[in-house]
Amino acid sequence: MDLIRATLPLVEPGRTEIHLPHWDGIEQQHGFIHGGVVGMIADSAAGYAAMTLVPADASVLTVEYKMNLMAPADGHGLIARGEVVRAGRTLIVTRAEVVALRDGAEQACALMQQTIMVMRHRGEKRESGAAG
Amino acid sequence: MDLIRATLPLVEPGRTEIHLPHWDGIEQQHGFIHGGVVGMIADSAAGYAAMTLVPADASVLTVEYKMNLMAPADGHGLIARGEVVRAGRTLIVTRAEVVALRDGAEQACALMQQTIMVMRHRGEKRESGAAG
Amino acid sequence: MDLIRATLPLVEPGRTEIHLPHWDGIEQQHGFIHGGVVGMIADSAAGYAAMTLVPADASVLTVEYKMNLMAPADGHGLIARGEVVRAGRTLIVTRAEVVALRDGAEQACALMQQTIMVMRHRGEKRESGAAG
Amino acid sequence: MDLIRATLPLVEPGRTEIHLPHWDGIEQQHGFIHGGVVGMIADSAAGYAAMTLVPADASVLTVEYKMNLMAPADGHGLIARGEVVRAGRTLIVTRAEVVALRDGAEQACALMQQTIMVMRHRGEKRESGAAG
Repeated sequence: MDLIRATLPLVEPGRTEIHLPHWDGIEQQHGFIHGGVVGMIADSAAGYAAMTLVPADASVLTVEYKMNLMAPADGHGLIARGEVVRAGRTLIVTRAEVVALRDGAEQACALMQQTIMVMRHRGEKRESGAAG
Repeated sequence: MDLIRATLPLVEPGRTEIHLPHWDGIEQQHGFIHGGVVGMIADSAAGYAAMTLVPADASVLTVEYKMNLMAPADGHGLIARGEVVRAGRTLIVTRAEVVALRDGAEQACALMQQTIMVMRHRGEKRESGAAG
Repeated sequence: MDLIRATLPLVEPGRTEIHLPHWDGIEQQHGFIHGGVVGMIADSAAGYAAMTLVPADASVLTVEYKMNLMAPADGHGLIARGEVVRAGRTLIVTRAEVVALRDGAEQACALMQQTIMVMRHRGEKRESGAAG
Repeated sequence: MDLIRATLPLVEPGRTEIHLPHWDGIEQQHGFIHGGVVGMIADSAAGYAAMTLVPADASVLTVEYKMNLMAPADGHGLIARGEVVRAGRTLIVTRAEVVALRDGAEQACALMQQTIMVMRHRGEKRESGAAG
């Protein structure tokens, strides 16, 4: 996240926000922030939201996600809001929205739905992967 | 794509490959390449594959995609292979696979399915967005 | 929808509900309602929600959807709630939740995110399909 | 599957086919087979493909799936082909294609990507659900 200059100003149980200022290096050809970057902060916001609900010795892994890019990420910054919809013992279902800030208003630009896996024993992680 | 040091060595009608070497800045906490970066190259590989099938005065926009992260992106580099499954007049359905290169072998690490919109009149793009 | 005995008791602009009673023919092997039926009512609830926001001479087509089946559809009936997240000129992004009714309470059992296409000229529909 | 008159003529390790004849009750308003039915056979074909790769005392559960409806399901029958892309210990990633049979040719009408969970201890199934 450092690479793209994002911050994580809000972390509550089951809910987080990632903020990303607009800067030149993350623009795509039309001056908007690249969809891949939008995906990365949505994925991370929802993943961190899941992390708030697992035990301290467990970790989380993104199994899969689905993202709709609804409008160009055009503005002076982005906010990604992640939340847990259902937390099971093994799998956590989350969603995230990304809004662009422009002229003091928020415009919805992406919507994501995601499945997270809870890894309870750290030692297993390397071998297994999300579908391991 | 320059930001993450990716290249596009293969571009054929309906098919592309993006290559990404492993370098320190794109690692996540466990030494693997971040899932968001994996998503970005899969999205781009499939998007460029769609672009090869639209008229020169049209452009393409990612409407949505769904990505399974199947194994850690662990190796000395990644290859994302994008291909068009069905090209319609307005929408193009694509898929992409991302493999990690390790010890001379390929390991599948991500699978993506994507919907692309064809924008035939450049002037409309700014207003419309993917769902505009 | 008649085939599975579903009803549509709520239709508001951008929002609908489909109700499905539990009956023997829609059970899968474990006594729960089949995931495919859950998918069908979620898809329909969201599709009808989109339909409320398009002109009378237009129709809608499901481009794609993504569904998480979060818990068994176990109870004396299901409610699917569909809503429009963003309505564009060509594409509409929706989501739906399906809850199971059991012992007077609702349990979330499915979450869906969907892309709908607006077909403005009826004559084009047959040729085009969602990606046509 | 009996309800919609589908059959399962091909079952190989990691691969299945479901066949569905066209009959009046499964048509939607335009004479095509309903997208929900297309989703149901794709989901089932891929789920059965996963089932071929798990131990006899384990069962499988659909965690989530994403489906593109690429063309109307128009013809005298449908074939859904499911295959396993990666089989892990806990999760299996699959995909399926649905084609419509018309005038002796196949037309691709749906593409699906799916995540399946392996349930190794039957007793746990009821409590847990896909995200349980």
